[in-house]
Amino acid sequence: MYRVKVYVTLKPSLLDAQGKVVKGAAVNLGYDEVENVRIGKFIELSINENTKDVNTAVEELCSKLLANTVIENYKYEIEKE
Amino acid sequence: MYRVKVYVTLKPSLLDAQGKVVKGAAVNLGYDEVENVRIGKFIELSINENTKDVNTAVEELCSKLLANTVIENYKYEIEKE
Repeated sequence: MYRVKVYVTLKPSLLDAQGKVVKGAAVNLGYDEVENVRIGKFIELSINENTKDVNTAVEELCSKLLANTVIENYKYEIEKE
Repeated sequence: MYRVKVYVTLKPSLLDAQGKVVKGAAVNLGYDEVENVRIGKFIELSINENTKDVNTAVEELCSKLLANTVIENYKYEIEKE
């Protein structure tokens, strides 16, 4: 079994409205030291170990399904178990 | 500046409905090798470097604001820049 961790983040040039709200909430709770918050997705995939080319499969899954590449970046780590 | 990465995941015993949908979409796209998908949040915090106890601050932020500890687990990494 391959365990894949995918990190999808909004491109740095884009305003992260959800992050802004969370930052405001943190400050309201008294955590003034929080200067910026950006919120992305963390996706864990389990992929059958008989897959021929797991790198290509994960790359395609990220670009076609998991991330919107117009506004998001992605990174992934593949571990064999 | 401290850069903190927070990973929030649904507890393993709980059904991840969003993950199930994404898994179905992956199979429909022809990626039958995808056996399981779980979707969580990836949160990046920037915290002022004058913070006295950054570990406690991050721990409290996670448990009070970023994760719902009834249904979610969290992990974090703190890096000083």
